Amino acid sequence: MSKIIAVNAGSSTLKFKLYEMPQEKVLAEGLIERIAMPDSHVEIKYDDGKKFEQTTDVKNHEQAIQILLDQLLDLDIIKDYSEINGVGHRVVAGGEYFDKSVIITPEVLKKIESLDELAPLHEPANVLGIKAFKKVLPDIISVAVFDTAFHATMPKKNYLYSLPYEYYEKYAARKYGFHGISYRYVSQRTAKLLGKPVEDLKMIIMHLGAGASICAVNHGKSLDTSMGFTPVTGLTMATRSGDVDISLLAYIMQKEGMKDIDEMIDILNTKSGLLGISGVSSDMREVEAAQATNPRAKVAREIYVNRIVRYIGSYLAELGGADAIVFTAGVGENSITIRKEVTDQLHYFGIGVDDEKNDVRGVVRDISAKGSKIKTLLVPTDEELMIVEDVETLSKENK
Amino acid sequence: MSKIIAVNAGSSTLKFKLYEMPQEKVLAEGLIERIAMPDSHVEIKYDDGKKFEQTTDVKNHEQAIQILLDQLLDLDIIKDYSEINGVGHRVVAGGEYFDKSVIITPEVLKKIESLDELAPLHEPANVLGIKAFKKVLPDIISVAVFDTAFHATMPKKNYLYSLPYEYYEKYAARKYGFHGISYRYVSQRTAKLLGKPVEDLKMIIMHLGAGASICAVNHGKSLDTSMGFTPVTGLTMATRSGDVDISLLAYIMQKEGMKDIDEMIDILNTKSGLLGISGVSSDMREVEAAQATNPRAKVAREIYVNRIVRYIGSYLAELGGADAIVFTAGVGENSITIRKEVTDQLHYFGIGVDDEKNDVRGVVRDISAKGSKIKTLLVPTDEELMIVEDVETLSKENK
Repeated sequence: MSKIIAVNAGSSTLKFKLYEMPQEKVLAEGLIERIAMPDSHVEIKYDDGKKFEQTTDVKNHEQAIQILLDQLLDLDIIKDYSEINGVGHRVVAGGEYFDKSVIITPEVLKKIESLDELAPLHEPANVLGIKAFKKVLPDIISVAVFDTAFHATMPKKNYLYSLPYEYYEKYAARKYGFHGISYRYVSQRTAKLLGKPVEDLKMIIMHLGAGASICAVNHGKSLDTSMGFTPVTGLTMATRSGDVDISLLAYIMQKEGMKDIDEMIDILNTKSGLLGISGVSSDMREVEAAQATNPRAKVAREIYVNRIVRYIGSYLAELGGADAIVFTAGVGENSITIRKEVTDQLHYFGIGVDDEKNDVRGVVRDISAKGSKIKTLLVPTDEELMIVEDVETLSKENK
Repeated sequence: MSKIIAVNAGSSTLKFKLYEMPQEKVLAEGLIERIAMPDSHVEIKYDDGKKFEQTTDVKNHEQAIQILLDQLLDLDIIKDYSEINGVGHRVVAGGEYFDKSVIITPEVLKKIESLDELAPLHEPANVLGIKAFKKVLPDIISVAVFDTAFHATMPKKNYLYSLPYEYYEKYAARKYGFHGISYRYVSQRTAKLLGKPVEDLKMIIMHLGAGASICAVNHGKSLDTSMGFTPVTGLTMATRSGDVDISLLAYIMQKEGMKDIDEMIDILNTKSGLLGISGVSSDMREVEAAQATNPRAKVAREIYVNRIVRYIGSYLAELGGADAIVFTAGVGENSITIRKEVTDQLHYFGIGVDDEKNDVRGVVRDISAKGSKIKTLLVPTDEELMIVEDVETLSKENK
């Protein structure tokens, strides 16, 4: 038995989930927000429903971890720091270096730090989290689990853009994809549900959270995915634009008197997608509630569904068919209507849901209509579990 | 019987094709290049195989037309200017104003001129051509045929980007699509070949020229297309990039010390696509010839095929199936191997070619393999014929 903690560090946040393994029991999970800002906020959920909250000032990630661990002691979740046997860090970008999870050595950390440019917002924060944990708990195994690694199997024709080749050679300018930890978890869980080895299956997984992407998984390996060099491309998301015509952006910049492309990219990341089209909200539930009376909310949902439908068609073409399409993450797990509307439009491929089976949220379930040629499944994701499993595996291999 | 001329004016070029209608007989066709530059070049083909060439200085589009008409007299193709009954101008952008061809009145011309920003390279040149013909032949019917008009039927969910809605309201920032004259011609010709009204058919047309796009045609109407606000998006083309991650471009600009987004867009238009990936050529034949020994040429072709395959999958999803997929334009009409490779990857959908039937260039032919669920057709495009037919139709309606 061991206790392993999964960590996701942002620039001013630290999310964690503490497991007892191999029972996969969640001992505690929570979030420290507004690190290095006034009124930082600590929230810990434990004991199936209890919740601890505190507003205090947290100077940096190191202090955040200190507070977190002390609170775990206080709440009697652990008796001693030494009970924690390992930590797994979610790292956004693995670049072309990392095609699987690795134990963090000084060399590994140096490589991760060299990838800052691939994810300027996230990578430095991930590094902060790694260093802070190393300082507070120097002796336990520390593992980096990359959001891109699952996509390392994409063939060159899928990860290369149609740009001058030298940009790839000089700057590693290519598609990396994201949500890889989620896709790895969901593909394995889906195989279990279908009672077949993942190597024998073709599936299309839709990770529909605030950030949304879609992945063609061929025999357990990523064949193609909709996010690109960065997470801004692909599907319509909560506030991200997905695919756009680059020349249109130059035109808008000129019209709006914007000089800096970063200003435009910020708009694509934070003011576009469901929010930008609808003008109502970035939250699918609120957009859906507004659609009866607000034509912009209605078209926002239509676009959201349309882009998913388009990608499923193209991935069916790339895969040459599929055993299943799989919904996961926030909207995927909870929006009965989005699942219904997407699958209704895929009738031609022999895809459809059974309305009664589909009337559910956040459970593992086959929701296919009777006689479906391609199954439709609902499989909630669990990225943290995937992370702690990797820590466990590498820990055993390393003994 | 009437003689009608189709005109395609570029900034320094004037292409024309003179027809005798309704026989659809081509009396002459040709090109004036390097207008307003030293050593302008005039080329006219006539009488099934004869060719006239001349290098001279042509000051402007008006003089180009003058030279052209005088040469048509000299070569005995016409006996008098007055034999020409109408002119049809290809106009690249119709914006949200024009959903079909129109007789050019002063009001129409003013609207066309207002659309310069939608196609900064082409639209002003198209206007030059219109004005010059008006001056030289003031009394004949003059018709504008728009490259975008066929796509006016796209539903909002397909033409809207997932951007702040105000950009659409303020600047008409949306997908317009191109190659619409070609899609209209090919969809009608395809319906004839299949012996059914175009209203009863669903088809996916691939216009694969130096500029390449693809269109989902639902009952004779454009449902979706791969080019966007400008022609840079969508498929991988001879020198254009097609779809890219916008944030990747910001990263490349920063790395290359490029300040101006227009510099980047120029690279996307002129140095990317087949040329950029392969480093060999923008010409598919040369890329194909190099692929056995040059891995970059090989992957360039794989990417070219892959992007077509992806779009066909997504349009099958949007259309809910199709009666036929149709190859047209330069590569589509002439590359036996590209047709073979694209269709081989679509086997899952019941698409495939018969190798013997496919062993042909530039003819109208059903090249489907026996038992295909979705037919594969080869239908050479004829945009000029479509243009003169529109002139004829509007001329009759106007009498």
